[in-house]
Amino acid sequence: MANTDRHTHVIGAGLIGASIGIGLSSEGWTVTIEDRSEGAAALARSIGAGGTLEHGDPHLVIVAVPPAVTAQTVVEALERWPGAVVTDVASVKAPIADAVALTGHGHRYVGSHPMAGREVSGGLGAQGDLFRARPWVLCPNGASDAAIALVTDVASALQCDVVTMSAVDHDAAVARVSHGPQIAASAVAAALGAIGPDDVALAGQGLRDVTRIASSAPGMWSDIARLNRANIVATLNHIIGDLEDVREADDIGEALSDLMERGRVEVARIPGKHGGTARTWEPVTVVVPDKPGQLVRLLGDAANVGVNVEDISIEHSPRQPVGLTTLYVLPGKAASLMSALEAHGWEIAAS
Amino acid sequence: MANTDRHTHVIGAGLIGASIGIGLSSEGWTVTIEDRSEGAAALARSIGAGGTLEHGDPHLVIVAVPPAVTAQTVVEALERWPGAVVTDVASVKAPIADAVALTGHGHRYVGSHPMAGREVSGGLGAQGDLFRARPWVLCPNGASDAAIALVTDVASALQCDVVTMSAVDHDAAVARVSHGPQIAASAVAAALGAIGPDDVALAGQGLRDVTRIASSAPGMWSDIARLNRANIVATLNHIIGDLEDVREADDIGEALSDLMERGRVEVARIPGKHGGTARTWEPVTVVVPDKPGQLVRLLGDAANVGVNVEDISIEHSPRQPVGLTTLYVLPGKAASLMSALEAHGWEIAAS
Repeated sequence: MANTDRHTHVIGAGLIGASIGIGLSSEGWTVTIEDRSEGAAALARSIGAGGTLEHGDPHLVIVAVPPAVTAQTVVEALERWPGAVVTDVASVKAPIADAVALTGHGHRYVGSHPMAGREVSGGLGAQGDLFRARPWVLCPNGASDAAIALVTDVASALQCDVVTMSAVDHDAAVARVSHGPQIAASAVAAALGAIGPDDVALAGQGLRDVTRIASSAPGMWSDIARLNRANIVATLNHIIGDLEDVREADDIGEALSDLMERGRVEVARIPGKHGGTARTWEPVTVVVPDKPGQLVRLLGDAANVGVNVEDISIEHSPRQPVGLTTLYVLPGKAASLMSALEAHGWEIAAS
Repeated sequence: MANTDRHTHVIGAGLIGASIGIGLSSEGWTVTIEDRSEGAAALARSIGAGGTLEHGDPHLVIVAVPPAVTAQTVVEALERWPGAVVTDVASVKAPIADAVALTGHGHRYVGSHPMAGREVSGGLGAQGDLFRARPWVLCPNGASDAAIALVTDVASALQCDVVTMSAVDHDAAVARVSHGPQIAASAVAAALGAIGPDDVALAGQGLRDVTRIASSAPGMWSDIARLNRANIVATLNHIIGDLEDVREADDIGEALSDLMERGRVEVARIPGKHGGTARTWEPVTVVVPDKPGQLVRLLGDAANVGVNVEDISIEHSPRQPVGLTTLYVLPGKAASLMSALEAHGWEIAAS
């Protein structure tokens, strides 16, 4: 509404930049987009990510280039358009804020980190609703209220969940909730190299969960690690220290028990639904034949007794034509769900 | 069939022992069960886990006591019933095999490790189909063919997926696929202690996956760690070494990229469906209103176009009344699923 007459210019026509361009354009914003590669820019324009910047100065510039060149590109944008507010989307924020602070243009810069998934990359995968319902971290630092309001409008237009914090806090946090876990998951996966295929076949759902993100392509992780090195090192110090305590303990059983108790306390702090602390859901595990339509039949039977399924995990059996599907439901709902499912002929494997 | 006339005696009436008792009894086997606690034994008998051993010698003894006292209980059983085959269910196998080897009764002992989930514990949670479609590892070591056949019959009667390997290989494997990942997940979780609640709220699905098993209670983990210490130390050496390489690299970006590439290779070896290597499924992420019946409607719409959903992950949005549900489908099926869902009014968030 307020911003449809304002001109937003996007620098970088990859997945994130093109998705922002499409999203804002479809909300009626005036958007232009450029890329170092004219082909990438043309592709993005062809899928509705914006027009070509031919004349006039943008009110807002969104820098969506790789992390390693973000700080330089942000500083150049601040200098090229002295009236514009500038934001960027890199997943490490303090080095960019530091570079901007040296320019004296800090009141026109707001750091952003839209935390969208990236199972695909490149402008071809761009979608205007890529960010919907995802957190969009805003790091205002020295920005003016008007600059903050403008970037908040972007996040709102893309239907993000806006979270505001300092760049320093952001970088320390993502080292703990994202960068450290990624590195640890890769290390757990790499340690499988010592065992043969028959032995790997003993893997259960626990290993699959821990190593799921270890299948990610390195992609931008090198840039991210270089930019957030100090926080990553602090996180690794914490993790390595705990692992060493277990490895070197006189009583490894007591040391592991201590670590697990400390870990449980922290896991309970990870938010579940709607920003609240994670609820303890009750599991109901059902034997499900591995053929089309069974899962929907199972969930239909659950829905018919009015039980809402909060989460699902599906475990495929190594060598059998059935899988185990665990439905997580609110405390107190498991017993009635089990009876209802059994009445419909389902085999309950465990609860 | 062959074994309904043979007498099986279970020692230990906890979750595992009572579940085995119920499962074999319901298949028509003659089962008796005892426990150090007469109350636990009486409870197990009351829920169909077996009768009381009053006279006669069992043909098969299944030891289902805590890992720390398993070796001693197995040796006592071998000596108490000189004609019986003995197995146990502890999740570490070599120390028990070693203790048995010293007795000269190794031909009558087969180690077992039924890899069932344990979200509940105690005989009250026992269910005869607890093991259905789960791996049951058999470690024959010096056992006779007849002893191996008898224990294999148990696993088959409980509809397990039998995997045979040496006790030494088993213990090395579970350190890599289970014990190491548990310790690493707890360490990643414990490292969250350094950041505040607003910062933890940046957690995404990746952190939730990595730390899901870190919410486990320590339970028997102290025993397990003590019994499998050497293999756990070797696994931790591998994991810590990789984390140190990243922490201390001149170029942390290059070091992380190298670790991630090595991790990806190993993750690809973790079996997916039916013992094959994990397939690459294509994700389709849908915006789902957080109210009862939506998930079944979504899966119904997917089933109506004949697309089988191989896996699901549900991500609840921190502060919004919608969630993102990702359906994983076979390669080539994502595009038609997306069109069909959009035709039914679903919003596709990303694919």
